[in-house]
Amino acid sequence: MDIVIVGSVALDDVRTPAGEVKDALGGSAVYSSLSAGYYAKPGIVGVVGQDFSEEYLKLLASRQVALDGLEKADGKTFHWAGYYEKDMGIAYTEDTHLNVFASFVPKIPTNFQKVPFVFLANIDPVLQSQVLDTMQNSEFVLLDTMNFWIETKRDDLMKVIARVHMVVVNDAEARQLSGEDNLIQAAKWIQSQGPQGVIIKKGEHGAVIFWEQDMGILPAFPVPVVKDPTGAGDTFAGGFIGALAQQKSVNITTLKSAAVAGTIMASFTVEDFSVQRLLGLEKKQILTRHEKIQDLTNIRPFALEVYE
Amino acid sequence: MDIVIVGSVALDDVRTPAGEVKDALGGSAVYSSLSAGYYAKPGIVGVVGQDFSEEYLKLLASRQVALDGLEKADGKTFHWAGYYEKDMGIAYTEDTHLNVFASFVPKIPTNFQKVPFVFLANIDPVLQSQVLDTMQNSEFVLLDTMNFWIETKRDDLMKVIARVHMVVVNDAEARQLSGEDNLIQAAKWIQSQGPQGVIIKKGEHGAVIFWEQDMGILPAFPVPVVKDPTGAGDTFAGGFIGALAQQKSVNITTLKSAAVAGTIMASFTVEDFSVQRLLGLEKKQILTRHEKIQDLTNIRPFALEVYE
Repeated sequence: MDIVIVGSVALDDVRTPAGEVKDALGGSAVYSSLSAGYYAKPGIVGVVGQDFSEEYLKLLASRQVALDGLEKADGKTFHWAGYYEKDMGIAYTEDTHLNVFASFVPKIPTNFQKVPFVFLANIDPVLQSQVLDTMQNSEFVLLDTMNFWIETKRDDLMKVIARVHMVVVNDAEARQLSGEDNLIQAAKWIQSQGPQGVIIKKGEHGAVIFWEQDMGILPAFPVPVVKDPTGAGDTFAGGFIGALAQQKSVNITTLKSAAVAGTIMASFTVEDFSVQRLLGLEKKQILTRHEKIQDLTNIRPFALEVYE
Repeated sequence: MDIVIVGSVALDDVRTPAGEVKDALGGSAVYSSLSAGYYAKPGIVGVVGQDFSEEYLKLLASRQVALDGLEKADGKTFHWAGYYEKDMGIAYTEDTHLNVFASFVPKIPTNFQKVPFVFLANIDPVLQSQVLDTMQNSEFVLLDTMNFWIETKRDDLMKVIARVHMVVVNDAEARQLSGEDNLIQAAKWIQSQGPQGVIIKKGEHGAVIFWEQDMGILPAFPVPVVKDPTGAGDTFAGGFIGALAQQKSVNITTLKSAAVAGTIMASFTVEDFSVQRLLGLEKKQILTRHEKIQDLTNIRPFALEVYE
């Protein structure tokens, strides 16, 4: 195993202009592990309820996601209901039932504890810290968070941020966390709190990577038809850490390649509901998008005359 | 002369968190011609009032902007007053006095009429059409517009759009014009109305270029301190058409280089109020940003294993 992912496993009700699904497989650990699995071997730590179907477990196992850390607790699985309007950039939450996730305490199986790459998806920062206490060989820890924790558990969040190598947040979260409106300043502030790197997700506008003194900018892989953006951010983070784990060394070049992998996996996710598009992808489909994004972003060496 | 630019010449009052200016030089023709002038030889067609200072005329002339088409009319110069809050992405208008611009009819000097590159900045689409009636040798016409014309003069706008080679709009305008939320679909719709190309500006998120069947994506050149975003879009368009005019041929490769030139000029503009930053730029400063953006966006050829 290359990556331990700690996060939510969910059943989602989602409605978009393109249709709807009920009790569909979702959650940060699910999206990110399915995505990471195209580049490396992930295992997940999470919890489901008694209502979680065998079929979904088989599906995760069929994609080589190690499930030793997936606990089955009394009660119901974490359930999210929400919808998107024409502008798919905004998710409207109708209902969140934490269910078994409310009392979730991550238990890291022994065979997970020496895994070098760790993705702490968006959960209570106190739990994120506890995971790090248990991990014994972390070479690279990526942390996600959200406005709720920034507002309600800021001190705990800053403590765990100080312990990780990289933070992955969206632009609004970066601004909220740092108090800086400019994203370069926001990233510098986050880096000053401990992490060597920050990756700022901007949805359809791509991502900006900061690593020590270096920086990289990547667009999102553009898709003409978006059916359901749920899980795009987690898919990005999963593809990112998966591709990074495969490359082993961490520097601005490997981080940029990893972010490309992340945006490409996310571009598949949004093309269908739930994790459907992440299940049967062929190597060729993925590589085609890798070539395409290089082509889209490639800038010819500058050969223009400049008149002072 | 390589480019004829038709647009506004303005005196702006601007307030941002970084300070304020009064009666500062502005307007689409001013920003775009100063920017274009680093790559090619622009001339402007516009109007100013009796209050427009000699100093500003000298300043434009010192940057080799041909002023034969700049009329001095009775009355006052077009005046815009506005401000920005912490999020510099949104301009709040306090006051717009069209003044001499209200009765502006572009008069194209004879020595401008055979110039091959034309930038129709954001003015009444009826006037944009009249300009095209006068131009005799247009190889490449770029058209900008805004929500006001989309709402109030849609038919006239669509008529002139059918006559140009490329439309430059921001993402909101592209969506409004086309009725499509997805930018790829929006661009395809605009292309179906006549133009071979569309360039969609996304402010701090960069730009997407569509040309026939091809596409390119570029980030904005990131700057850590933004003092005044006024004119960034016009500066982008000016640098874009300037660099395109220098390259002469129009294809996805030259268009991408041109858009890089545009975003770099815009990155200078926002670093200070009004056109101050566009005045004394050295070749080396510009070339350094060209190299930097290549470095930021360069994606290493994909060498990752994919597990189906």
